[in-house]
Amino acid sequence: MSNLLSKQAGNAAAPRLAQVQNPESEIVRFPKDAPLILDSGAALAPFSIAYQTYGTLNREKSNAVLICHALSGDQHVANTHPLTGKPGWWETMVGPGQPVDTDRYFVICSNVVGGCMGSTGPTSIDVESGRPYGLDFPVITIGDMVRAQVRLIDHLGIPDLFCVMGGSMGGMQVLEWAASFKNRVFAAIPIATSARHSSQNIAFHEVGRQAVMADPDWHGGKYLDYDTQPRKGLAVARMAAHITYLTDEAQHRKFGRNLQDRERVTFGFDADFQVESYLRHQGYTFVERFDANSYLYMTRSMDYFDLAADHGGMLANAFRGTETRFCVVSFTSDWLFPTEGNREIVQALNAVAANVSFVEIESDKGHDAFLLHEPELFETISGFLNAAAKTRGLDAPRLAREAGM
Amino acid sequence: MSNLLSKQAGNAAAPRLAQVQNPESEIVRFPKDAPLILDSGAALAPFSIAYQTYGTLNREKSNAVLICHALSGDQHVANTHPLTGKPGWWETMVGPGQPVDTDRYFVICSNVVGGCMGSTGPTSIDVESGRPYGLDFPVITIGDMVRAQVRLIDHLGIPDLFCVMGGSMGGMQVLEWAASFKNRVFAAIPIATSARHSSQNIAFHEVGRQAVMADPDWHGGKYLDYDTQPRKGLAVARMAAHITYLTDEAQHRKFGRNLQDRERVTFGFDADFQVESYLRHQGYTFVERFDANSYLYMTRSMDYFDLAADHGGMLANAFRGTETRFCVVSFTSDWLFPTEGNREIVQALNAVAANVSFVEIESDKGHDAFLLHEPELFETISGFLNAAAKTRGLDAPRLAREAGM
Repeated sequence: MSNLLSKQAGNAAAPRLAQVQNPESEIVRFPKDAPLILDSGAALAPFSIAYQTYGTLNREKSNAVLICHALSGDQHVANTHPLTGKPGWWETMVGPGQPVDTDRYFVICSNVVGGCMGSTGPTSIDVESGRPYGLDFPVITIGDMVRAQVRLIDHLGIPDLFCVMGGSMGGMQVLEWAASFKNRVFAAIPIATSARHSSQNIAFHEVGRQAVMADPDWHGGKYLDYDTQPRKGLAVARMAAHITYLTDEAQHRKFGRNLQDRERVTFGFDADFQVESYLRHQGYTFVERFDANSYLYMTRSMDYFDLAADHGGMLANAFRGTETRFCVVSFTSDWLFPTEGNREIVQALNAVAANVSFVEIESDKGHDAFLLHEPELFETISGFLNAAAKTRGLDAPRLAREAGM
Repeated sequence: MSNLLSKQAGNAAAPRLAQVQNPESEIVRFPKDAPLILDSGAALAPFSIAYQTYGTLNREKSNAVLICHALSGDQHVANTHPLTGKPGWWETMVGPGQPVDTDRYFVICSNVVGGCMGSTGPTSIDVESGRPYGLDFPVITIGDMVRAQVRLIDHLGIPDLFCVMGGSMGGMQVLEWAASFKNRVFAAIPIATSARHSSQNIAFHEVGRQAVMADPDWHGGKYLDYDTQPRKGLAVARMAAHITYLTDEAQHRKFGRNLQDRERVTFGFDADFQVESYLRHQGYTFVERFDANSYLYMTRSMDYFDLAADHGGMLANAFRGTETRFCVVSFTSDWLFPTEGNREIVQALNAVAANVSFVEIESDKGHDAFLLHEPELFETISGFLNAAAKTRGLDAPRLAREAGM
């Protein structure tokens, strides 16, 4: 293992690979005799979960909020990212005085199993072979991700979560939590998500996977053995995906047909247009912080997600008997996870008389809106959490602070 | 040249490459002293245009219909394709008794310059070097394609066209004809197109190009010199593009989340879902009939298209003084070339008091609708052409036939 690490130290991906085995995060390591039993039937052991926390768990252990990250996200929700040096991916949402107020709540965000920021995934060392798993890593489902999170919550001694929230793939995890661990979720906020991945979305994922696999530097998933990585393939996958996160309108507003640092087109294949330059940048910066095999596993987990199918073909069955209060959020211009799919969740919740509020937010920013500056989103989350906190008897932050003084 | 051909005969792409230099089509070869002057300023010479015709040109030469093909199309609009053995790409539209009735009209369809089915393109031999052009081929615009078609029409001795029609990139050529050769177009039918390529569409094209260029078998465009072709890259490009031709609804109806020849998911990266299997098939069959460099050039020509910019920033200027009658057609579910972009064309035509009818056809088939069985499209084209033919004094087909008896 140390040989491998030192070999990898000479690799351009070394900083990223260092985060796999020694993440700049808290880490909990579950030993070989405490495997994670996966939906595929495989047993993953040993396995680790890397996570960040913000704020303080109260004495009653009743103020924990679990944030579930999306496909290309990680646990660094509200701190500087150790690889990119950029702010956390949801600092507008999570932090002192933010809608998810870390002065009030104990916030946890863990890297999903299958990821590449310290939780066990395809880049981790398989103790059986002493080599990185590569494609020998078992396929992970959204359910598997959630059961790994349950193990973490157990480890932290938290009996139940005040709230589970997340967007996109994170929203799928929220739904899975609410369906499979009903008595451990007080409130749930699935955002810009769906109870099942659509055919079109599977298609976009398949294109991304084919792009990665077409890159000869992928080496059937064993690229670490060749001291390389499928940079170009992963960049193309990211570019294709990135388009789906935006809208035609948002792109038009941002780029139009503007040229990049030039007065006229060059009659060639350079990035004449700003949108081309932007996409290439998105593709190649992604490669610096993400693992190609993890990308395959993350997309696959979403493709396989079909909550109704897991409950006898009827989505309402997934939520029967729930006492969780839900806040479902969608965005008008999100064509990857359209309002319709979110509304199906609401209808299923209504069918079992669950406590649910539904907000469709007017935005032209597309799927990405959940990560961007959307005041109505912040107000929605803030209002919902305040009301839920009151019901749960959590002190208001100012009062808590005064009480402590 | 013959050496090259015989070398290529051993290549899996040999049948395709044979069509480049000796197409199973009529061909007109313009000599070195009759260059095509391109928008880039380059002079293309010698150059060839491969074309198909159907029906008979009448004595007055007044019944010629030019069909302009789309990005991945070619001249084989209404005959068996020499490579795939499949019917022509628009046999539902063009043929005896069809809306574009070859018993009545003389139909011409030529491979665009830059293409790969016999018209001069990046796979053709550059007489200067004796090698295929590759990326030394000059960038082609929609205007260049149209001027090459004008040369063909001149060669055929046709003073003006009864109608120019086409969808998507073909529709762009229709608009260019109507703008630049006003007195040679009696009627024009742009379908599912736009007067300028949008930022989102440029982005999708850029992803496709990056996929091709990321393939090491692309060799900077010189793959023929290496007796290979960027199969995987082009297949990925085609898969990504193919998704944009469909709609979420159409995919859902066609595939849903149905599995491919299996009862349950395999927890792996095989094509578990039908949509994955379908996409892979689309990608790899495309490679058998299309050239990767041509794909780069075709996408670029569309990116560069901006008819208003060519006319002082005002689209209406492009059509000022036109006497052409127009029929503009869009499809409700086409998100690649939405109705809005087609409506802008209509508004510009209205602004110059042109004779224009506009039909938005209800369909859930997306951009691909123009190629599929859409009865309302056939009725629209048929009705418009009949009325235009009457105005132009063309005999009705039955009367013409009786007159000939």
